[in-house]
Amino acid sequence: MSAKMLGRAVGSRALSGTVLRSELFDITVSLPRPTFTNQRTMASKAITMENINPNIVKLEYAVRGPLVIRAAEIEKELQKGASKPFKKVIRANIGDAHAMQQVPITFIRQVLACVAYPDLIEKGDFPEDVKERAKLLLGAMGGKSAGSYTMSHGIEIIRRHVAEYIERRDGHKSDWTNVCLTGGASNGIKNCLQLLINEIDGKPSGVMIPIPQYPLYSASLAEYGLEQVGYYLDEDNGWGLDTNELERALKEASTTVKVRAIVVINPGNPTGQVLTRQNIEEIVKFANKHNLFVFADEVYQDNVYDPNSKFFSFKKVMADMGEPYSKRELASFMSVSKGYMGECGLRGGWMEVVNFDPRVQANLYKAISAMLCPSSLGQVAVDCVAKPPAQGEPSYELWAREKEAVLSSLNKRAKMIADTFNQMKGFKCNPVQGAMYAFPSIALGKGAVEAAKKEGKAPDVYYAFKLLEETGICVVPGSGFGQRPNTYHFRTTILPQPDLLQEMLDIFKQFHEKFTKEHS
Amino acid sequence: MSAKMLGRAVGSRALSGTVLRSELFDITVSLPRPTFTNQRTMASKAITMENINPNIVKLEYAVRGPLVIRAAEIEKELQKGASKPFKKVIRANIGDAHAMQQVPITFIRQVLACVAYPDLIEKGDFPEDVKERAKLLLGAMGGKSAGSYTMSHGIEIIRRHVAEYIERRDGHKSDWTNVCLTGGASNGIKNCLQLLINEIDGKPSGVMIPIPQYPLYSASLAEYGLEQVGYYLDEDNGWGLDTNELERALKEASTTVKVRAIVVINPGNPTGQVLTRQNIEEIVKFANKHNLFVFADEVYQDNVYDPNSKFFSFKKVMADMGEPYSKRELASFMSVSKGYMGECGLRGGWMEVVNFDPRVQANLYKAISAMLCPSSLGQVAVDCVAKPPAQGEPSYELWAREKEAVLSSLNKRAKMIADTFNQMKGFKCNPVQGAMYAFPSIALGKGAVEAAKKEGKAPDVYYAFKLLEETGICVVPGSGFGQRPNTYHFRTTILPQPDLLQEMLDIFKQFHEKFTKEHS
Repeated sequence: MSAKMLGRAVGSRALSGTVLRSELFDITVSLPRPTFTNQRTMASKAITMENINPNIVKLEYAVRGPLVIRAAEIEKELQKGASKPFKKVIRANIGDAHAMQQVPITFIRQVLACVAYPDLIEKGDFPEDVKERAKLLLGAMGGKSAGSYTMSHGIEIIRRHVAEYIERRDGHKSDWTNVCLTGGASNGIKNCLQLLINEIDGKPSGVMIPIPQYPLYSASLAEYGLEQVGYYLDEDNGWGLDTNELERALKEASTTVKVRAIVVINPGNPTGQVLTRQNIEEIVKFANKHNLFVFADEVYQDNVYDPNSKFFSFKKVMADMGEPYSKRELASFMSVSKGYMGECGLRGGWMEVVNFDPRVQANLYKAISAMLCPSSLGQVAVDCVAKPPAQGEPSYELWAREKEAVLSSLNKRAKMIADTFNQMKGFKCNPVQGAMYAFPSIALGKGAVEAAKKEGKAPDVYYAFKLLEETGICVVPGSGFGQRPNTYHFRTTILPQPDLLQEMLDIFKQFHEKFTKEHS
Repeated sequence: MSAKMLGRAVGSRALSGTVLRSELFDITVSLPRPTFTNQRTMASKAITMENINPNIVKLEYAVRGPLVIRAAEIEKELQKGASKPFKKVIRANIGDAHAMQQVPITFIRQVLACVAYPDLIEKGDFPEDVKERAKLLLGAMGGKSAGSYTMSHGIEIIRRHVAEYIERRDGHKSDWTNVCLTGGASNGIKNCLQLLINEIDGKPSGVMIPIPQYPLYSASLAEYGLEQVGYYLDEDNGWGLDTNELERALKEASTTVKVRAIVVINPGNPTGQVLTRQNIEEIVKFANKHNLFVFADEVYQDNVYDPNSKFFSFKKVMADMGEPYSKRELASFMSVSKGYMGECGLRGGWMEVVNFDPRVQANLYKAISAMLCPSSLGQVAVDCVAKPPAQGEPSYELWAREKEAVLSSLNKRAKMIADTFNQMKGFKCNPVQGAMYAFPSIALGKGAVEAAKKEGKAPDVYYAFKLLEETGICVVPGSGFGQRPNTYHFRTTILPQPDLLQEMLDIFKQFHEKFTKEHS
């Protein structure tokens, strides 16, 4: 296993100012300063910064990092009547649709209510298909109660509905026993990453992830002591994926790392690109050539806005390509947190695992079983997404209208945000073809870079903190996702409702002009 | 890090017949046999039994192991009309109350329904306090929707309610910022165990766990490559905890392991004992003497049946003891899955972390934040448990009646099961003072031991499989929890409703007589 796993590398970053502030946020009032005395004395601690799991210290998660914690502090200050140049914090840092006033899909919530409180099936005033769905799902739960544990991999009927959804999507067979319900996509991703923790021929296992990437990956790799092998997405080509860059990254890493897997996020987070079928074929060929396990993070598969883009799942493309590519090991991840439903809080998702060695799959399932089961109500939401109301059913029209309303509004906002940024001097923003984010680059001059250095911050972090403190707009600096050296970006969601988004973009514009003047 | 973590020890057990059967259960139909050819050939796999994380292979979880999987197979066979000496499987293997027809607490479910579908607050026919609670919780959720992410550690108002619950319980201050909501207790336990993964002075970190234990601990220690340091509970003294045994276990392990923590399960799982205050004081002194981190698994704190027993939390006892003991690091775990509510499927729980080094706590919280948040609806259930209806509120009487009904019925069943086993020749069963399980010992003669050997099974596993195949009763063999060499036990829940439990015990009696004859 790598030196990283041997407790030598207590990450200095984790002890830096910003991160410590974030670390202390939740516990300011309560705890005494530690006393680092001899282990035998009474005030000593069993777990200290000297003997804690060093991988946990190294782990960072920017989407919920210091900047976001400062945003929460500012909200509390505003509540207490502090005077600021703004009235509210605009949380554009996280893909949290309902928090930005996106309306839940009625069908999902009605089924949830009936499953949670079955008296409503008789007494409540709900459409027939809602009642039928609730009865079907309750019938699949022990004692007809959502309070019973489900099978560790989820309720069979729901897994079957997911497999049917995948078959409709791809036009290829999906075996329900390869579908595993998860508590959001993150759990499934971590369960699969965990299979790779090992040392091969004296080299630690490594996983290729895009730069920029969704920080769950860098955080989980750090946690597991797996080596992060970054490959750069091509900003000048709409964040496309260039196989020469894949080969470069693999080759460079291979001297010290056994590269065993590649993560692809499509549609892209934070970058918003939608991969072409041809691009996916190239990636599959690359993975096959080097015998890499493919992580297909496809949680934004419903979020495609560009009329010239279409979502193709890795499973479909691999199957269309035929052997040997159709035999590649793949895990594809989906969630109810994104798409048109945005049910982040319910923690529902699934993964489809394809072409696993049966004994490896059995071990994956065994490990999952020790965690008992994902939330039964999260699974109910998964069922409603995998098998929505069909045409002709009572809930169909409302469901279709609500879905269309969310997606077309997101579509407008995706265009609006990219256009606005591209009109701003010093900004460059690729079109937001899909997902829920824009990741524009900003030109930061010498003045800004030096000012940031004075504060011991990366220039993009400095910029984002200034933006937050002066305008209340909370975005995530590009360094939280990774970016090419000496380039600066930030991620903003496209989730604020149109009026708020317009307001945010106007404020942003003014701020940037002011910032540029101050730092010229 | 220990050799275990260096990928050398691919657990042979995991390749044995039984486990393989269990592993294959979920994937029988679907997957091609793997072809173990050169890595470069097209049919090769990126993850094989040769390069998989060996800790995952070693991990075992008996509560959902081969026997339970066979039980599910049998249920399917019965559905398909297979003729068996019994009509149904009795699942006494897992603490899954609702699956055994325990009725949900109405207040919890009504609040859940209103939060899931807020139209019900106006339109629905619910008590005022249900509506008020739903409004309060929705007000604390982003966009007033359960679909929003919550803070990673849970919704602040719920954390505050939990702290108030703990203060009422213990008569000592609880700081809400030390309360962290979790997806069931298991997640919190794993998050804290993970802090210990490290090598100290060339020795791997070790954790003391009771034998018998709840296998989440052995499974998680295996998964993390932490050393399991077992201490035996004293069966002859009602599964009490003898500090001489603790000293013995610590001393023996310390030559090769850096023992850093001790797990105590109170009330006991699988053993059902309730620790006396004095016993807890002894454990705290032991932990303090050796500077051990204390894991207090207190998920059964509401499940105390013996009139001479009382639940004392480790937090309370430590605080009562004063310094230095009141400064011991402690994590206490609670869940909505047990107690009188039995809401396993909702995945709600909490942990209170006490006396942590602030930087260590900050790192724990940081690691948790990468997993986004526990289920919002699970958190709603936690709130209803931490702050149930108060006397005088509309829902109070029904809530109190339902709670009392569950606990008094469990009380009767606890007595019934121990008495019955103690009347059976060859059985010895300590009184079930608390929790949800009996863990009787069975005398298995030479004949049984040899028959088991022939089938390559441990004698208690052999017995449990026979019991399942001949009667449909599913219990978990003692070897899944650990037991002294050459002693045999099994764990059964006390959860079947009284009539079914009586039926189960009668069948059990007949089976055991038959088994004894056949194996004499």
